[in-house]
Formats: sequence, C-alpha cells, structure tokens
Amino acid sequence: MSVRQRRVSYGDAVYENRSLHIVVMVGLPARGKTYMAKKLTRYLNWVGIKTKVFNNGDYVRKITRQCSDHNFFRPENEEASMLRKKCSVDAITDIVRWLQEEHGRVAVFDATNTTRDRRRMIHQIVEKQLTCKLFFIESICDDAQLVEANIKEVKVNGPDYKGVKPEKALADFLQRIEHYKRIYEPLDEEKEKYLSYMKIYNTGEKVLVHKHKGHVQAKIVYYLMHIHISKRSIYFSRLKVWTSWMQRTIQTCRDINAPTERWKALNEIDAVSSVINVYHMSLFRYRRGESYEDLVARLEPVIMELERESNVLVVAHQAVLRCLLAYFRDIATDELPYIEVPLHTVIKLTPAAYGCDIEYVHLDVPSVNTHRGKPQVPGDLNTAPLPIVNVEIPQTYQPTFRQSL
Amino acid sequence: MSVRQRRVSYGDAVYENRSLHIVVMVGLPARGKTYMAKKLTRYLNWVGIKTKVFNNGDYVRKITRQCSDHNFFRPENEEASMLRKKCSVDAITDIVRWLQEEHGRVAVFDATNTTRDRRRMIHQIVEKQLTCKLFFIESICDDAQLVEANIKEVKVNGPDYKGVKPEKALADFLQRIEHYKRIYEPLDEEKEKYLSYMKIYNTGEKVLVHKHKGHVQAKIVYYLMHIHISKRSIYFSRLKVWTSWMQRTIQTCRDINAPTERWKALNEIDAVSSVINVYHMSLFRYRRGESYEDLVARLEPVIMELERESNVLVVAHQAVLRCLLAYFRDIATDELPYIEVPLHTVIKLTPAAYGCDIEYVHLDVPSVNTHRGKPQVPGDLNTAPLPIVNVEIPQTYQPTFRQSL
Repeated sequence: MSVRQRRVSYGDAVYENRSLHIVVMVGLPARGKTYMAKKLTRYLNWVGIKTKVFNNGDYVRKITRQCSDHNFFRPENEEASMLRKKCSVDAITDIVRWLQEEHGRVAVFDATNTTRDRRRMIHQIVEKQLTCKLFFIESICDDAQLVEANIKEVKVNGPDYKGVKPEKALADFLQRIEHYKRIYEPLDEEKEKYLSYMKIYNTGEKVLVHKHKGHVQAKIVYYLMHIHISKRSIYFSRLKVWTSWMQRTIQTCRDINAPTERWKALNEIDAVSSVINVYHMSLFRYRRGESYEDLVARLEPVIMELERESNVLVVAHQAVLRCLLAYFRDIATDELPYIEVPLHTVIKLTPAAYGCDIEYVHLDVPSVNTHRGKPQVPGDLNTAPLPIVNVEIPQTYQPTFRQSL
Repeated sequence: MSVRQRRVSYGDAVYENRSLHIVVMVGLPARGKTYMAKKLTRYLNWVGIKTKVFNNGDYVRKITRQCSDHNFFRPENEEASMLRKKCSVDAITDIVRWLQEEHGRVAVFDATNTTRDRRRMIHQIVEKQLTCKLFFIESICDDAQLVEANIKEVKVNGPDYKGVKPEKALADFLQRIEHYKRIYEPLDEEKEKYLSYMKIYNTGEKVLVHKHKGHVQAKIVYYLMHIHISKRSIYFSRLKVWTSWMQRTIQTCRDINAPTERWKALNEIDAVSSVINVYHMSLFRYRRGESYEDLVARLEPVIMELERESNVLVVAHQAVLRCLLAYFRDIATDELPYIEVPLHTVIKLTPAAYGCDIEYVHLDVPSVNTHRGKPQVPGDLNTAPLPIVNVEIPQTYQPTFRQSL
C-alpha cells in the first residue's frame, strides 16, 4: 500500500499526502506502557490524527483466562508462549487492516515486546505489508516504589484479576514481572540500530531518541516529554490562575489572591467572523473565522503546559473549555461542539489511571442555559453560530455532584 | 533575582511570569555548535522569546590575535588557558547582566566547555547569581567527513584565519581540535547527573535528553530535532509545491506538474476583521483579527517542516511570506510588517553556513507595487491595514538579480 492521499486537520498543520505510523510499546509489565499508549492516542486524536490502541492483553484474554496466574508468563511455558505470539500476530494483522481499510493514521501496539526477536518479527511484518513508519517506545523504570504504586493502582483491579484478592493479585503480578525480567532485552543501540525508537527512563527523567523520522514522530517525542504521572488536579487548590486576554475572564478573577497568567491562546473562538463574511463578501474571497479544528491547534501549547502543571484553575470561554474538556475526557471531534459547559460552575478534573475524574461544582447563581444539543441532521459544525458564555467563579462555592468517567 | 513579570508573545503561548534560561553549548570545535546556537537563537526570537548568542571566540579575539595558531589551544599553555577562562567568566558576566538588565529571556553561551570543571564553574556562577534554568547542549560528531566539510565551509574563512591560506588554516584547525580532544570529557550521565542537558549525535541521528525542565527547554529540544545540515534550497528544483487553502494560490500552481500539499496554516493573515470590529462594536467586546504574532504562531509547524524538507516551493500570501522571510533572514519583529515581497517574483532561499542566501527571480509581468514603507512614527503595527497580494509563479522565468546576506 502506498501512502494515501488524505486531508488531515489543522492541528496536524493541515496538509495532504501524509505518512502512516505504527508505534510499538516496549518494556516490562507495570512500566506505564498502557498509560502512555492511551494518553498519546487521546492527544493525537485530539489534534486530528486518527489513532487507535491495540492492546495485546485484550487479544490474550479473548482466548484464555489463564492470565490471572503468573505461570502463564513463564518463558518455559511453550504452549502459552506460542499462544501469546499468535496474539501478537493477530494484533498486527488487525493494525495493518485498520490502517489500510479504515483510514487510520497511527496505530499504537501496546504489548511488552521485550525481546529483540519479537521486535524483529514486527519489523519484518510491517516492512513487507505496509509503507509506513515504525517507531518503538520503550519505558524503563528502576524505581521500585513507582512500579509498585502502578501495580496497586492499575493492575490489581485490572481485567486479569477480576475476583482475585488484592494481596494475592499483587504477589502474582510481581512474579509475572520476574518471568519477563529473565528474557528482557532492552532496545540495543548497536544490535538494533536499524530501528527508530525512543527510550523513556523513569517517566521522563531521561529520554533517548534514535533515528526518528518525520514530524509525527517528532510530535510524539515532544508530547511524551511533557507528561508526568504524579497525582494532581487540573482545576482547584493552591490556586494558580490562568485566564484569557479578554476582560470578562480577567474581571472574573480580579479578587482571587493567587498568581495569575494571561494566555492569548485561551481567548474565545473567533466564530462570528464567518457570519460577517456574508455581509462583506465583496471584501473577502475566502471564509474567515476559526473552526473548532483551528481552536484545537491554538490550544495545543495550553495542553502541553497543563500536562506539566501541578494544580491550576483555568478561567475561559465556552468553545475553549469544550476543546479542553474534549482532550481530557477523550470526546470525539464531532461531539466536541455539543459538550455542555454549564454557567456558574467549576469543573474539577483529576487525571486518574487511564482517564480523568470529573467533578461539577455548581455555584448557586440563577442563569439561562445557553447550551444547544447536537442537531438530528448534522450540518457544518463550523458555521453553526456559537453562544459565547462566561464561566464566572466567585470565591466561595458548594459542591453539588460528582461524576466519574 | 526572581523570575520576572513579563508579557511574552503568542508564539510562546502568551502568558506572564516566565522563567529565564541559559543554554550552554558543549563539544569539540567544528561540531556545529555555532550553527545550532545561531539557528536556535533565530528561531526563539522569531517565536517572540528574546534570545542572544554570546560567543566565547569573540571575547578571546577581543584581547588577543593568537587564535590563528593552534598552540594557543594547547592545554599546557597555561597563560592562554587562563586567558580563555577569563573570557568565559566575562561572557557569563555579560549574560547575567543581559538577562537582568535588558529583559533577555534566553542567553546562549557558545563555547567548547569541554571539561567537567568548566561546566561545574558555570553551574556555580549561575546558581549563585540568577534564578534561572541552565541547559547544556552537547554536539557529538564522529563522522570525519562531516567535521572536515564544516571546517572547510566555516572555519577556514572565519575570523581566526583572516589572511591565512586555506590549506594552512585547515591544518592548523585540525591540530587545534587535537588539543581539545586530549582534555575533552563528554557530559557524563553519572558524574553530571545534577545537570539538565541534551546530547545530539551526528547532527540528530540520536538525541539524548536528561532532566529537561519547563516548556522552553522542551521547545528547544523539539526544534533541534528538526534541523538538518545538508545543503538544500527552499524554493526551487525537484518541484514539490506547498500552497495555502485559498483558491488564488491553488490556481497559481494548477499547471505545475509536481506533488502539491495544501496547508491551512499558509492562509493569508486575518487582519481585516479588526477593521470590521469597529462597525460591529455592539456585537463584540474584544478586538478580533490576527496580529503578526498570531501569524508567526500559526506558521510554526510550517517552519518545522521546512527545516526537514529538501527542496520545496511555497506559494503563499504577502503577510505569510513576510513571516517566513523574517525567520530565514533573521529580521526583527518590528521590521517584519515592512518586508518587501514583490509581486510576480520567485524568492529562492538557500540556507548557508550561518545565514541564508537569497535570490529574487523577477518575472516579467507588469504590476503595481503594493508595498508600504515603515512609517516615520510607528503606530500599532497590528492595526495597520495590510494589502493582500498574490505571488504568482508561471512555469518559465528569467533570473534577474541575486543578493547575498
């Protein structure tokens, strides 16, 4: 298959003729591979690059329930090894089909891929069947505390240990890791110098990039350099405040005693210009105004910074908050313009294992609901007039309800 | 000194309270340190982050003319070593003053800094005097051909060898490198783990990043991952064509038989909205329309891709081409809106050692000059109405004049 003719979004800098990518995770269990794979996928989809995770564990669980016992992962267990290899091949076959038939752009293969043999096999399959770029991402972590915290938060309650007691699950998982350690071969700068890859040490303390190709891989590296995994809340506590450059957000925060930063990128969408266009047709020969895609591109640096920040309160506008919510809640582009951003409400986001906890803190101020539902017959989203609304945040508030995703 | 309150530009995502940075180059002579330092500085200034290079060689040349003899660089030459150390201290003192008094944001210290002692000294001076982030960039190159090409292109005709014959200069410079090699200690992951740094191998084949901090350092890494040093021209030959999404650029290129990519980011500046604003004042409470700063932010991904491309023809609009020219020709922001982009002209850019060769290929089509000079008393550049102009490129043309920068 040759590289396809396709138009991609503004976030991806909008041009045609773009390449296809397979991103392959590498690393021992509980090194944050799934976390990175999911987060990266959410980000790339958000900027308009169609991306999907293919998780090897899902394929294994489809054909066997033995994964709750570490013995299944012993290298000596040949039957199980064959089974797991078959799952890999199945996953890659699905990846190839998805890229070829469903206009996928980046497929993320989430598996341990801990041996050179396995990586060579993947390289050979991909080289033969696809004209696409292969990029390995290895997560290396020698911080035992970090690994154990990861197991407790994610694995113990994960799909492999349904109905298993936490202590037993933890012990079993630690043994599973030991089996992998015996055969683990980290990506080797000499022996695997034909590969493009990135190594991430202790969730970003050190990053090594080898033979990266093209701007999508550079974008992936750039994004993964920003993420961190410590607990934090996006919206409240230790109040550090971000506003747009528009008076209404600045005024909203004028009484909050906290360091304030003004982001021009947080300004409301410039949507109404497209209406004016009709009036001034003689002046212009092309449609003006921003689309949601443009807005996402403009908000990308804000997301990068939000990924770094510990705790921050963002005071912005309806369309802007919709885009930010779409990122954190992984909402598809076509649903984005219909996300409800209620007035007089603080939305608190707490990134959790593989998603985001969300809490709506309603402030008791009477107001009109300006939200419009998605029409039955979708029109051109970019031309739909957008109500422009403030989210105003007084100093005191009462929590009302909490919704977990 | 504490981190300063300052407003920075949109390209830097516009917010206040930003950190200061010192970027310190590390590496043997002729490893492209000056090239990277200058290029990085040009880029950061272009996105609105005030940056300046401090070149140690300039300080040395101020006090002695001995640099044209390699013996000056022998480690055993104690007098010369003291002199060169003094120059380093002078440069860092100037850097500190520039950051504190002239609102500089990023200072790039361009010197070899090949020993751990020297790097520790820099670290201590900076830690004591400034609250700012220190980032080392080491360029490592073991490709002898690349090094020799670099010496021939840059050093032999450089300021150290004025009036010296090329062969003699080359031989002397190779000996100078040998002196450095004897004392060179590359950044050490164990012994210098307290430092933030980036190592670039063979101009980007491999990149290692250690303890990077904040988004400016991440931006620096991202940018340096895009640059390459092979010769190429930006505008013509092997015609690959980039246009905007606007009909007039697409039509201009419809007869060119070459792969075409359409970039939304190349669309003309949305400047006229700010005029309409006045008319529709009741509708809006803030100024719309794009400034040149906004345009630079929008063009950033285009620049990243241009840095990767071999040969490409960009067909775009006046304001857009002004921004691109400002990047390649290192033109200050306040001069940017007055850059002349003549009609019916192909502008050919060929990146050279530390700058860019430029060639105007005038096409013999009668037209009106729409360029307006910079006013005597500068007003608000962003509100000045901008003439919108096509650059139309027929298939045949005759070169007329060439101007080297």
